[in-house]
Amino acid sequence: MGPLPGFRDFYPEDCARRNHLIGTWREVCRRYGFIEFDGPILESTEIYQRKSGPEIVGQLFNFTDKSHREVSLRPEMTPTLARMVAAREREFRKPLKWFSIGQFFRYEKQQRGRLREFYQLNCDIVGEPAAGAEAEIISLMIDLMRAFGMTSSDFFVRISSRMAWAGFLQTKNISAERSAQFLAIVDKLERETEDVTEKKLGEFGITLGEVRDFVHDPQSSPALSQLQRELEQRGLVDFVRIDLSVVRGLPYYTGAVFEIFSREVSLRAVAGGGRYDNLVRDFSDGAVDLPAVGFGMGDVVLGELIDETPAAADQRKKHVNREQALQIYAVIAKEERRNDALAQIARLRAEGFRVDYPLTHAKVGRQFQTAEQLGAQIAVLYGDEWPDVKVKDLTSRKEELVPNSDLPARLKDQIT
Amino acid sequence: MGPLPGFRDFYPEDCARRNHLIGTWREVCRRYGFIEFDGPILESTEIYQRKSGPEIVGQLFNFTDKSHREVSLRPEMTPTLARMVAAREREFRKPLKWFSIGQFFRYEKQQRGRLREFYQLNCDIVGEPAAGAEAEIISLMIDLMRAFGMTSSDFFVRISSRMAWAGFLQTKNISAERSAQFLAIVDKLERETEDVTEKKLGEFGITLGEVRDFVHDPQSSPALSQLQRELEQRGLVDFVRIDLSVVRGLPYYTGAVFEIFSREVSLRAVAGGGRYDNLVRDFSDGAVDLPAVGFGMGDVVLGELIDETPAAADQRKKHVNREQALQIYAVIAKEERRNDALAQIARLRAEGFRVDYPLTHAKVGRQFQTAEQLGAQIAVLYGDEWPDVKVKDLTSRKEELVPNSDLPARLKDQIT
Repeated sequence: MGPLPGFRDFYPEDCARRNHLIGTWREVCRRYGFIEFDGPILESTEIYQRKSGPEIVGQLFNFTDKSHREVSLRPEMTPTLARMVAAREREFRKPLKWFSIGQFFRYEKQQRGRLREFYQLNCDIVGEPAAGAEAEIISLMIDLMRAFGMTSSDFFVRISSRMAWAGFLQTKNISAERSAQFLAIVDKLERETEDVTEKKLGEFGITLGEVRDFVHDPQSSPALSQLQRELEQRGLVDFVRIDLSVVRGLPYYTGAVFEIFSREVSLRAVAGGGRYDNLVRDFSDGAVDLPAVGFGMGDVVLGELIDETPAAADQRKKHVNREQALQIYAVIAKEERRNDALAQIARLRAEGFRVDYPLTHAKVGRQFQTAEQLGAQIAVLYGDEWPDVKVKDLTSRKEELVPNSDLPARLKDQIT
Repeated sequence: MGPLPGFRDFYPEDCARRNHLIGTWREVCRRYGFIEFDGPILESTEIYQRKSGPEIVGQLFNFTDKSHREVSLRPEMTPTLARMVAAREREFRKPLKWFSIGQFFRYEKQQRGRLREFYQLNCDIVGEPAAGAEAEIISLMIDLMRAFGMTSSDFFVRISSRMAWAGFLQTKNISAERSAQFLAIVDKLERETEDVTEKKLGEFGITLGEVRDFVHDPQSSPALSQLQRELEQRGLVDFVRIDLSVVRGLPYYTGAVFEIFSREVSLRAVAGGGRYDNLVRDFSDGAVDLPAVGFGMGDVVLGELIDETPAAADQRKKHVNREQALQIYAVIAKEERRNDALAQIARLRAEGFRVDYPLTHAKVGRQFQTAEQLGAQIAVLYGDEWPDVKVKDLTSRKEELVPNSDLPARLKDQIT
């Protein structure tokens, strides 16, 4: 009686945690002047075959629909964004600053942090070639993490550049066709033994020493040094580090690439992105040519990182409690007062208070117990005192008698 | 370059309208003490074959996954709710008051208001057999509509009862097996010609007159009369009407059923639900037996109704503007001030303000134009006056010089 393998049920506590991520993502993106869009969860398989690269296509959650269409549950947002922008770009002022929050699907072997569905925030600036767009995007990534209660002791951003590697390969006379193969070796630099890496690099006539020198040489990418300075001016020096060993899997990046990592040993990527200047053009068969830079941040690794970061976990707990807690519980001490209580409950709810009450007759003690279990701040008792009601603060345990007509005003003062 | 047939792209304006529905649904449900949950978008096909009935199973968006599992994009929420409640009901205090908001899928012929995907709010009370649960659920449906700016001139709730019809069929000696067939005739009462209906009813030995008398006789269902009185006591008399011609398509209802209709001629159903006391038991193969009552409200017909209701459309427009509008636009009049501006923008965003600025050099006039287009309330100009900044209210056109250190406090007063 569980969900399908790799899929999650969101019981109320899980759902509140998910809403905390989504709500925080949305709030911070809006502070940055980003506006929200979304696309369909199901797309034509073809749009992923075009540009997403072999890794994603091999893991597509795809099938043939009842009209014999090849369709896929979306594995990522960027192809949909490129499709939508290409279709209607004239209607929007450039640069676009767009974000979206949705669910994504991959049919892959299950392992820790790798479900078959996950939520992801995507943020993109479309139509701005200047490096100021990278700075704005990276700054947003950092502020998103900070909004969850994370500090520079918990995470940092590693910034690299596809352009820098393209230059390196040119000086070594290695063709563009072989670059993906070469970058795959760089991508595994930290996980592979030195011997294996040396051997693989040997096929390109390059030594591990040369690669390491290039990775650590500040002169390797003047453009990144400029970007780093801009981020420093924003007060983000503790959060960013140039590290050319980051290359990112997706083939469509054309310039800067960046990833957020947790500082703990396992170095898990929490978010990643980069510049992809050709994707919109390719999706519109050349009709619309707009440079773009963006990133994605998933819910699974981020959720684990929050679990492991006490300040962040504490902040999330407060949010979850606030989302679920009731404000007022109406204790119906005398059934003769039920109709009066119901009428007042309707008015309180209309004013925006969160109010609950017993649907059928229950003992007064039991009703107070329910009020506590539901996290109510205030219990209002309808009984012999009518038309007065007894208002009890369930935190301070103080209670007082109030004319029922004064109740809404009184509660406005008391509810935090 | 569009989405798949029957699927929607949500460009920013569409997305803001969707968020307005979702946000309002969530807010009103919480006022009623409902807490949110969610399930997977993909479920085993079997759970729909069990109980959802032939109409839904015929329209399933189903396929075989790469592990040869029969899976379906969810067409409705109730089977998932029953599955989840049956699996972990001991952990939750009864009655559960749970809601969920998600996307659903049906593979059906496209027509107005019937896409292949839609959003739906589902609200359920699980574990309460008393009619007070129906009253709470129907009251919530009505308040949801009112929160969108709808009044009793725009919509009403028709309430009926499967129990009442079961009693009617018993007096006519018609077996329970034939009741679905009979209720299908009642369901079409308003859309079918009298001749055809008479003929179909003849097979049951019943006349159209008998059915009409039963539909309009207040004595047909004493339980419904009691429910109506409870709703009247909540001040909802203008919103509800007993009408036994409503039977609802889904086979799992066992008691009261109800639908919200717009008052315009076409009588489209905006929301519908009822009591389904056996579903949790059936899903747990008898292990968990909990009565339940709930409803679903979709985004498509509701959205059309808002379009056609000026007060509701106006309220939505305000919400959409508020969701998308920027608060502050930083006009960088001198590039030498860009770093000072960026530092201050970072601080303002950290305080929660929505701030944007030009990513690259632009003429001052052009920047003010952008500020207006983005709907900013305030423009802050960084130029020769530094360390003072010029603060311009873009509505009143008033401007004043302010020391930059005073800016956050000043903006707090000015931003509405």
